Amino acid sequence: MVHATASSEAIDPDDVTVAYVGGGSRQWAPNLIQDLAQSGLDGRVRLYDEYEESAKRNARFGNWVQSREGAVADWTYEAAESLAGALAGADIVVLSTQYDPAETFVHDLDVPRRYGIYGAVSATIGPGGIMRAMRTVPLYREFAAAIAERCPDAWVFNYTNPVHFVTRALYDEYPDINALGLCHEVLGTRHRLARYAREHLGMADATREDVSVNVKGINHFTWVDEARCKGVDLWPTLEELRDGEEGHQEFTASDLADESVFVDNWQVTWELFRQFGILPAAGDRHLVEYATWFIQDGKEGLNRWGVKRTGSDYRAKHWTPAESEQTTDVDAWMAGDREFELTESNEVFVDIAETLAGDGSYVTNLNLPNVGQVSDLQDDAIVETNAVVRAGEVKPVAAGGFPRPVRALVRGHVETIETVIEASADGDLDAAFEGFLIDQQVRTLQTEAARELFAELVDIQREYLESWDLEESTVLAGSSACSVD
Amino acid sequence: MVHATASSEAIDPDDVTVAYVGGGSRQWAPNLIQDLAQSGLDGRVRLYDEYEESAKRNARFGNWVQSREGAVADWTYEAAESLAGALAGADIVVLSTQYDPAETFVHDLDVPRRYGIYGAVSATIGPGGIMRAMRTVPLYREFAAAIAERCPDAWVFNYTNPVHFVTRALYDEYPDINALGLCHEVLGTRHRLARYAREHLGMADATREDVSVNVKGINHFTWVDEARCKGVDLWPTLEELRDGEEGHQEFTASDLADESVFVDNWQVTWELFRQFGILPAAGDRHLVEYATWFIQDGKEGLNRWGVKRTGSDYRAKHWTPAESEQTTDVDAWMAGDREFELTESNEVFVDIAETLAGDGSYVTNLNLPNVGQVSDLQDDAIVETNAVVRAGEVKPVAAGGFPRPVRALVRGHVETIETVIEASADGDLDAAFEGFLIDQQVRTLQTEAARELFAELVDIQREYLESWDLEESTVLAGSSACSVD
Amino acid sequence: MVHATASSEAIDPDDVTVAYVGGGSRQWAPNLIQDLAQSGLDGRVRLYDEYEESAKRNARFGNWVQSREGAVADWTYEAAESLAGALAGADIVVLSTQYDPAETFVHDLDVPRRYGIYGAVSATIGPGGIMRAMRTVPLYREFAAAIAERCPDAWVFNYTNPVHFVTRALYDEYPDINALGLCHEVLGTRHRLARYAREHLGMADATREDVSVNVKGINHFTWVDEARCKGVDLWPTLEELRDGEEGHQEFTASDLADESVFVDNWQVTWELFRQFGILPAAGDRHLVEYATWFIQDGKEGLNRWGVKRTGSDYRAKHWTPAESEQTTDVDAWMAGDREFELTESNEVFVDIAETLAGDGSYVTNLNLPNVGQVSDLQDDAIVETNAVVRAGEVKPVAAGGFPRPVRALVRGHVETIETVIEASADGDLDAAFEGFLIDQQVRTLQTEAARELFAELVDIQREYLESWDLEESTVLAGSSACSVD
Amino acid sequence: MVHATASSEAIDPDDVTVAYVGGGSRQWAPNLIQDLAQSGLDGRVRLYDEYEESAKRNARFGNWVQSREGAVADWTYEAAESLAGALAGADIVVLSTQYDPAETFVHDLDVPRRYGIYGAVSATIGPGGIMRAMRTVPLYREFAAAIAERCPDAWVFNYTNPVHFVTRALYDEYPDINALGLCHEVLGTRHRLARYAREHLGMADATREDVSVNVKGINHFTWVDEARCKGVDLWPTLEELRDGEEGHQEFTASDLADESVFVDNWQVTWELFRQFGILPAAGDRHLVEYATWFIQDGKEGLNRWGVKRTGSDYRAKHWTPAESEQTTDVDAWMAGDREFELTESNEVFVDIAETLAGDGSYVTNLNLPNVGQVSDLQDDAIVETNAVVRAGEVKPVAAGGFPRPVRALVRGHVETIETVIEASADGDLDAAFEGFLIDQQVRTLQTEAARELFAELVDIQREYLESWDLEESTVLAGSSACSVD
Repeated sequence: MVHATASSEAIDPDDVTVAYVGGGSRQWAPNLIQDLAQSGLDGRVRLYDEYEESAKRNARFGNWVQSREGAVADWTYEAAESLAGALAGADIVVLSTQYDPAETFVHDLDVPRRYGIYGAVSATIGPGGIMRAMRTVPLYREFAAAIAERCPDAWVFNYTNPVHFVTRALYDEYPDINALGLCHEVLGTRHRLARYAREHLGMADATREDVSVNVKGINHFTWVDEARCKGVDLWPTLEELRDGEEGHQEFTASDLADESVFVDNWQVTWELFRQFGILPAAGDRHLVEYATWFIQDGKEGLNRWGVKRTGSDYRAKHWTPAESEQTTDVDAWMAGDREFELTESNEVFVDIAETLAGDGSYVTNLNLPNVGQVSDLQDDAIVETNAVVRAGEVKPVAAGGFPRPVRALVRGHVETIETVIEASADGDLDAAFEGFLIDQQVRTLQTEAARELFAELVDIQREYLESWDLEESTVLAGSSACSVD
Repeated sequence: MVHATASSEAIDPDDVTVAYVGGGSRQWAPNLIQDLAQSGLDGRVRLYDEYEESAKRNARFGNWVQSREGAVADWTYEAAESLAGALAGADIVVLSTQYDPAETFVHDLDVPRRYGIYGAVSATIGPGGIMRAMRTVPLYREFAAAIAERCPDAWVFNYTNPVHFVTRALYDEYPDINALGLCHEVLGTRHRLARYAREHLGMADATREDVSVNVKGINHFTWVDEARCKGVDLWPTLEELRDGEEGHQEFTASDLADESVFVDNWQVTWELFRQFGILPAAGDRHLVEYATWFIQDGKEGLNRWGVKRTGSDYRAKHWTPAESEQTTDVDAWMAGDREFELTESNEVFVDIAETLAGDGSYVTNLNLPNVGQVSDLQDDAIVETNAVVRAGEVKPVAAGGFPRPVRALVRGHVETIETVIEASADGDLDAAFEGFLIDQQVRTLQTEAARELFAELVDIQREYLESWDLEESTVLAGSSACSVD
Repeated sequence: MVHATASSEAIDPDDVTVAYVGGGSRQWAPNLIQDLAQSGLDGRVRLYDEYEESAKRNARFGNWVQSREGAVADWTYEAAESLAGALAGADIVVLSTQYDPAETFVHDLDVPRRYGIYGAVSATIGPGGIMRAMRTVPLYREFAAAIAERCPDAWVFNYTNPVHFVTRALYDEYPDINALGLCHEVLGTRHRLARYAREHLGMADATREDVSVNVKGINHFTWVDEARCKGVDLWPTLEELRDGEEGHQEFTASDLADESVFVDNWQVTWELFRQFGILPAAGDRHLVEYATWFIQDGKEGLNRWGVKRTGSDYRAKHWTPAESEQTTDVDAWMAGDREFELTESNEVFVDIAETLAGDGSYVTNLNLPNVGQVSDLQDDAIVETNAVVRAGEVKPVAAGGFPRPVRALVRGHVETIETVIEASADGDLDAAFEGFLIDQQVRTLQTEAARELFAELVDIQREYLESWDLEESTVLAGSSACSVD
Repeated sequence: MVHATASSEAIDPDDVTVAYVGGGSRQWAPNLIQDLAQSGLDGRVRLYDEYEESAKRNARFGNWVQSREGAVADWTYEAAESLAGALAGADIVVLSTQYDPAETFVHDLDVPRRYGIYGAVSATIGPGGIMRAMRTVPLYREFAAAIAERCPDAWVFNYTNPVHFVTRALYDEYPDINALGLCHEVLGTRHRLARYAREHLGMADATREDVSVNVKGINHFTWVDEARCKGVDLWPTLEELRDGEEGHQEFTASDLADESVFVDNWQVTWELFRQFGILPAAGDRHLVEYATWFIQDGKEGLNRWGVKRTGSDYRAKHWTPAESEQTTDVDAWMAGDREFELTESNEVFVDIAETLAGDGSYVTNLNLPNVGQVSDLQDDAIVETNAVVRAGEVKPVAAGGFPRPVRALVRGHVETIETVIEASADGDLDAAFEGFLIDQQVRTLQTEAARELFAELVDIQREYLESWDLEESTVLAGSSACSVD
């Protein structure tokens, strides 16, 4: 029970070693590089990626940025040839990978849909989310084991989805890991609340940083029961908006035709807030996968709340690392084909890292093992609440519990996650299927159909599921969907 | 926490006072009368019913039975004019009523079906079961209050469905009540297991009484993880049957055409046993309302497992007290138009009552507030496990917990029950709707459709929902289904 | 969480194999032999003992008894040469040993006394009880491991003290063991309550069997909050006795001069009942070691409550296996030097065994791992409550919780027990000392004195503590009481 | 479970209303006045005291300070005539009273000592601490009720001891109160750790503010399992000091002769750290009353650890409000008889208040109801951990649990506190005695002696115990120590 720190060393702000696993990324890595260049920290970053060329390109870009205007900090970059080499003695590890190809994500969307399951994103829960977890978790167990060996005291920032599954796997594999699961959704809620404060409370300069919320739940299914802007209670304003026109908009497919798949009209948020008296704090497209009423009428039912479903064509295009077009075209920048200006991302990574290495305290939402911060959920489940960061430590903030009906919803998803993680420890596919079967989205199927769906998904993605015991699986054997060799 | 018995008196087996609320019943009362006539107990029974004539007829029958051959015990019967009069000083109270007319039960079946919810019985969970609970619970709060006043130490046998909701309401209203919730489903499972012992283990004379099970769950969603016949483990036999032909039968509508609605082919039982490694112990028609995968494909989907849906025509006919034909035609018996022979029912009522008043111990399944007998469920929820009855006491037997996926299913229903019961304390209709909304069957609807369904059911049954605050309800006000006056 | 019985076979009442570990005993074995001779079971008993001669003598006696009048059952006896041989395929294992010599028990009494700790028995808790546990637990881990290998499904009856420590160790070593911890104290309470029923309620023939109690706690510190005789509530009678002369007797040393050390005047019982409203159910001499107020004034303080301290001279004489005089002198019986008449002991062993092998149900108090039967204590701790025995199964009865102050007392002892058991898993002496230090009796010492007492006890008994890591112990190293070689 | 803020308004830093109950204090009030004068807040302070003259004097002083050099903030002071008037509409309430006269505290020390209980301070636990709680708690229930009526959303700073009892009573009386219990002990530990960082880690300028600890427990019995200075782990240094000379000092009475009663040699701290691997974080003189081994050998035993007992003569002199000499002689300052220089206290009050009214976050230890921040202790108990303060909110930081033996100690005291608080709700003296009886210090007495001690203390302080039902008390009636009129 006691967690005494026996050996972790303080991070020296002038000499920070960062290992970036997935460092070949086109979007995150350039952002991080720019944030670091403007930070109060100096050091080196080792970029590691299965696609070594990408890591090398980002390393070149990182070193190139150092010479740009505004780059006040002193950083060097290199591509690491091995995971072990990247991790050795690191103070900070960033985990942000996406190695399974876009087609797997397309399957995650399209196969369940054929069974009538109309998930909006299909990436963190529901049949698609669970499959993604099953593809990802074994790799992250390997990362955790390598961290235990190479840099056991490092601070590990996990950005990889599904954040709850993946972070849970890290702790399950190496219980003493100092891992933080990060996500933008709650930041987005605070951003929006700042807008409401500006528009309805005359707080003209209010920004996300001025908004504090008491947040709790699991990643992508977080809830807020207190919200303030510069100390002013936002609750009465939110209730007014909810009960007025703002909270009662209906949408049609044509309304949304030109919108991005990321459009968020908050109508799911308002509806859940109205129903349960507590405000959801994740994008509507995520919420509908956990509060599954909203996906029960297919496309029309979803659109009515202003939510678009991620199209598989979109995904096929955008999730393919090698071909996606990006705003962060580092080659173009370096070649001078595109004008470069050092910008700050909205990430909290640097805020956290500076505080860990420095002084003061910094409060933000983080995904951490439950030690009591959410009183209604089981110990060790990865929950999302505020946490307070200080030099050398991160501690979750006690956030209390839920109204009973919301508690029931959240707990249901925790059971699925815990079942799958436990199954992943020894690759027991049938045990994982039990978590799949009790998933809220899957409960609209007959058991036999659920088994068929699972088998079909496993079969089509089997090359990415090598850590699972497919041979001995009863579910696969019993399913006509699956041609076991 | 301590529950010391300060004042309850032992029941004198020669002088037992029974108050039978709902004593005008055509089926249960004649059975009880015959069981008592053959018991080791003597005393008096006061029959109370909203339909006083029915109570009087049963009283005449009761006294008439005393003169029949085989009636060894000494009992007198009278119809009570008031509830208070019936209860005054009673040692035992039987609660078994059905005052809401058959048409309400028809609505419970038919209205949800129009919304695509194909409940098989619709009487203890799901939209219909919740409505029935909402009609019944206020009356049982009144019963509990009257018991607290008139016979606070009496043993209260509740047979009225939904047993979990109703028994919970009794305890919520009068926490010191000695109430037992009774049900046949687990007895039915033991009966069937005895048959398997006869057929597959050569135990030719095995009966229900020889079969012991470790049972746990909530009423109509109970599970067994140990089963023996005369001490012989039945598990290997059950696993064999499950994995063989017996456990893999498929049915079509025509197979079931001539079957009673009560037909139980155990295919849902085998499927759940196969999936979770723990054996359900309630009729398949009940199980499918709690393990809702099975009702996801309408009539065909249900029939495939050998389950028939209770037709509303059947119900209209059979649940109407005044018109149902019965095997227990007391007038015909008394007039000599039908031959009468004293028979024993399969009820455990007399076994329990004799043990309470006598010696030895008797083990049977009972629905009681959780004080730890089911380790996975919350305190105070009404759970069903074995209990041991002895002179003057009934104690639940510790039954342990569930495999995680089953736990998730059971807990979900407990949340609905607890939400509705809490709402019933002050008739808060909107709070009750939250329990309705998170019900597993309802989760296949959009929130707006769920609200509409609820409003329609409430509206059509409003004369039986007088204890609920319909005027202030947001759910009703917001629904087009409901014409609030 | 689920505990499904996969393979245990029913006990055939005509063919029972009993392994009796400690079967050379002079008192228990002859009793058991006589009980079996009059039972409804037939079979064979293998007696195993470190003192093989004693086992052989008892085997001869067992076979001799078969020819006596009244010996209706058919049993054969043999001395087993090895533990493994005794256990192989056994249906029932009896554990009842006392291998550490009387002098160790003398030390358990006398050494703490020199430090001002005036334990009355010093055999199940307090410094002496903990030392005894430390000598005994390693051996019982070996027994458990052997049972796991030789007769994994056997029913194991543990009579060896300290029952809570020892039974806990059996389960810690082999979690699937079917072990029951047995003790007479609650039976003694029921015996006394029957006397009160005879004397004060006119129930002339009331016996222990007529008395039912709701019992809960840990062995030797059990409490009763309901008590009935033939269903009649004994509580009002008990309160009257408590508040009258019966409950307010004072004793002096001379009053007790001629009494046995086992004298029980119930004044501790009444005092605790008066204080907390719940009745203790163990002998006063045991209670005072758990409710330590009573041992705070040395001999005089103890005698005032009618309790005698076990003298070390008594113990030296009576706990020496080889030399104790006994009522059960089997050699004299067999030689015809003493008249033999088959008698029944008050043990419940045969009642339990008959029920396990037969039919019906039998309720008695047993020490079992907590799965919820005591709601206030942690899971897995060995707690004592009623249990219901049926063919092939034993299940604890849910007994509820305690008034808060009693809960505080009981929990404190559980913490000591759990700490020592956990320490015993790898023989960590310093960790065991932490359990010793927080023991209620030890808390009257300074920490340094506690360490010295512990070291002195360990040093003087070191030949019986071979499984503990004495070399690495900080406690021993730091203490002047201990001459580490 | 949910705690949504519906109506609390942000504190305007330019217009803060403070109600100071106990505002006549000689020490705290002048400190607070000086701190406010140098703060970033403006507003008014209403001083309320039973001794109205003292409040008026402090009001004069407060207004006088405004004109001193360095008084940058704008504050006005007034003495309030009534509690209601002081509280009306307050943003902040300070509770800091000591109305029971010094003689009661002398009794708290001296009477238990006659029974052999050698408490070092006797002011927050043990017989004296419990008596103080019993005198104080009823008054604080009145304060809580008045706050609920006059300023329900105010932030309430409770400084009054025993902080755990008193803060618990505030919440028990008015569950929605925003009350914080404050104490210096953990600040003292951080102060000392900063010194170690300076002396042993070469961090020359380290101060208390640089030291962060993970603290948990109950007030005056708090524990630390992580400690850092500017992020550098202090644990290895602390272990070295503990195991070396620093941690192994012995003291005699003569060593301490000239020391203040507040002397803290940390030998109790080192000994407990050595024993349990977790560092206590309260003064040794407090620790010994909770870890009672240290008070088991009277004066000598206590002195050996470098702890002096608070003499009753000292207390008689210093705790008498009217006569104590002080460093904060406001009359002398105002008259010019003593030179005045505006100084800052070490209190965190202004830091907290500024953060509540402003921006950023501030972390400090606070006593708050447990909602999970200490995972090993029961909900609602007042526990001490870090909390993070932000504009309009205070949230506890999740601190985890304890090693089992420490958990056992802490829980024991929580049981006493909860028992007494529950008893205080309706003034049940006998119920309070149960909390007294299970107190660790009291367990060295026989039950009869404990009853006598309690009765004697109650009798001698009965004029300060008017809210308790002395008439109906069995404990008083049965004791010879108490002359019930």
